[in-house]
Amino acid sequence: MIGARLVNGVESAAVAADDRGLQYGDGLFETMLASKGRIMHFELHLARLREGCHRLGIPEPDRDLVENDCERVLAGLDGGIVKLVITRGSGPRGYRPPEQASATRIVSSSARPPPTREPPEALRLRICEIRLGLNERLAGIKHLNRLEQVLACAEWNDPSIDEGLMFSADGRLICATAANVFLVSGGRLVTPAVRDCGVAGVMRQAVINTCRAMGVDVVIRDLGLSDIKGCEELFVTSAVRGVRPVGEVIEVGNWSVREMTTMIRDKVQETSP
Amino acid sequence: MIGARLVNGVESAAVAADDRGLQYGDGLFETMLASKGRIMHFELHLARLREGCHRLGIPEPDRDLVENDCERVLAGLDGGIVKLVITRGSGPRGYRPPEQASATRIVSSSARPPPTREPPEALRLRICEIRLGLNERLAGIKHLNRLEQVLACAEWNDPSIDEGLMFSADGRLICATAANVFLVSGGRLVTPAVRDCGVAGVMRQAVINTCRAMGVDVVIRDLGLSDIKGCEELFVTSAVRGVRPVGEVIEVGNWSVREMTTMIRDKVQETSP
Repeated sequence: MIGARLVNGVESAAVAADDRGLQYGDGLFETMLASKGRIMHFELHLARLREGCHRLGIPEPDRDLVENDCERVLAGLDGGIVKLVITRGSGPRGYRPPEQASATRIVSSSARPPPTREPPEALRLRICEIRLGLNERLAGIKHLNRLEQVLACAEWNDPSIDEGLMFSADGRLICATAANVFLVSGGRLVTPAVRDCGVAGVMRQAVINTCRAMGVDVVIRDLGLSDIKGCEELFVTSAVRGVRPVGEVIEVGNWSVREMTTMIRDKVQETSP
Repeated sequence: MIGARLVNGVESAAVAADDRGLQYGDGLFETMLASKGRIMHFELHLARLREGCHRLGIPEPDRDLVENDCERVLAGLDGGIVKLVITRGSGPRGYRPPEQASATRIVSSSARPPPTREPPEALRLRICEIRLGLNERLAGIKHLNRLEQVLACAEWNDPSIDEGLMFSADGRLICATAANVFLVSGGRLVTPAVRDCGVAGVMRQAVINTCRAMGVDVVIRDLGLSDIKGCEELFVTSAVRGVRPVGEVIEVGNWSVREMTTMIRDKVQETSP
């Protein structure tokens, strides 16, 4: 039942208008890929959600309830996207969180997005103008305050451009609008730190785990535009779209080598839980 | 009818679960004080909302519809708080704004909050630990991405503390969690710039306009903790709570003089449209 939506376990298309998710973006989400009736990397999604709940002080949702909701919205489907939203629930006016928050849990399914390009064709990226503000208290987690990403995506409507790279307020490469970024440099895998902005993506973590298990060196550090210019391979990752090679960053460079990218993509797919 | 809520002009307690206000905090709000059946500083609220719609690319709501909704939620009331939320409306999954956005308009009323302290008793403030990330594209407007303010308010639960002062990531004094800040220094009024974080408050603007009309010098500039320590008077402003003198900032200082604060408060009340 694609398009099914459960609010606190009850089929519903609506949420209370005083929900703090709507009033202040006071909540978290996970967008998960389901295949053959199973959610890929479910443990990594739950771990990030737990970290988010801990940081925002929102009660962690019951795992069994989440699993049950996911099964219900996937009923009869082979695969699709499952989106889970957890908010701090309803509350009176004012920023202060209620002492007894009763979280809202929204689980919905949708069809897998059509591929922007068939593999192995590589993605075409641009550089976004909007920068990411820095706040270590909000970095890494997938919270509902996403206006920076919304404005980044509104910067272009050329369908030949697949994604946009985003930089921090102080000029570091951080991520794409809805993906993490990796580059291969000197045979090593390098990805930006997300300690003060950006999201610690589930597919980013899966790639890091897989590579380290294979003995591939993964370096997490600050990166700039010059690091992209000099790299051997470039790819982006997301839970929904997987590992995707980048062929061009407009006005920055082109890449045709994707040996390590392909190897990592295959290995991550093979070892996916 | 306190507690009334209109969603796109229809009495409703619910909003579509796929509303982008909930999914991404993709929207704006205004919290307005109503007295004697009228909304105070309505033109300033509308002007800030217009600026927000322009910046986010959300269609501006029809003024007559907003006015009509406000009248309806205030029907039979002498006064109260009217909250207006404008979101980019429902949309498919993904950050990219739909080409044809159909904004959602939520108007609700609630009772005026009980005064935390009876005038002329002055407020007691603390310094918040969480800092404000910088993004000039989001600064000044009252958007729905408010996790920084939520986390700031969660820092204390001592009821003897009325508000918390917030600093930018680079250490400048910006605002309180739900108010702007003014200080009197050398007989001049000074308030922080909100060019890269913070909200351009309606009462802040009313105070600036009133003071300039009276010939009082108002300086908008970057401020630090040392500016508070050395100032003669300190006050905070909000559309809901008005102009409120500050008597103490914990571990920073105490103020007993409030000559200019009182004069400004009286003048703003007197000239309120």
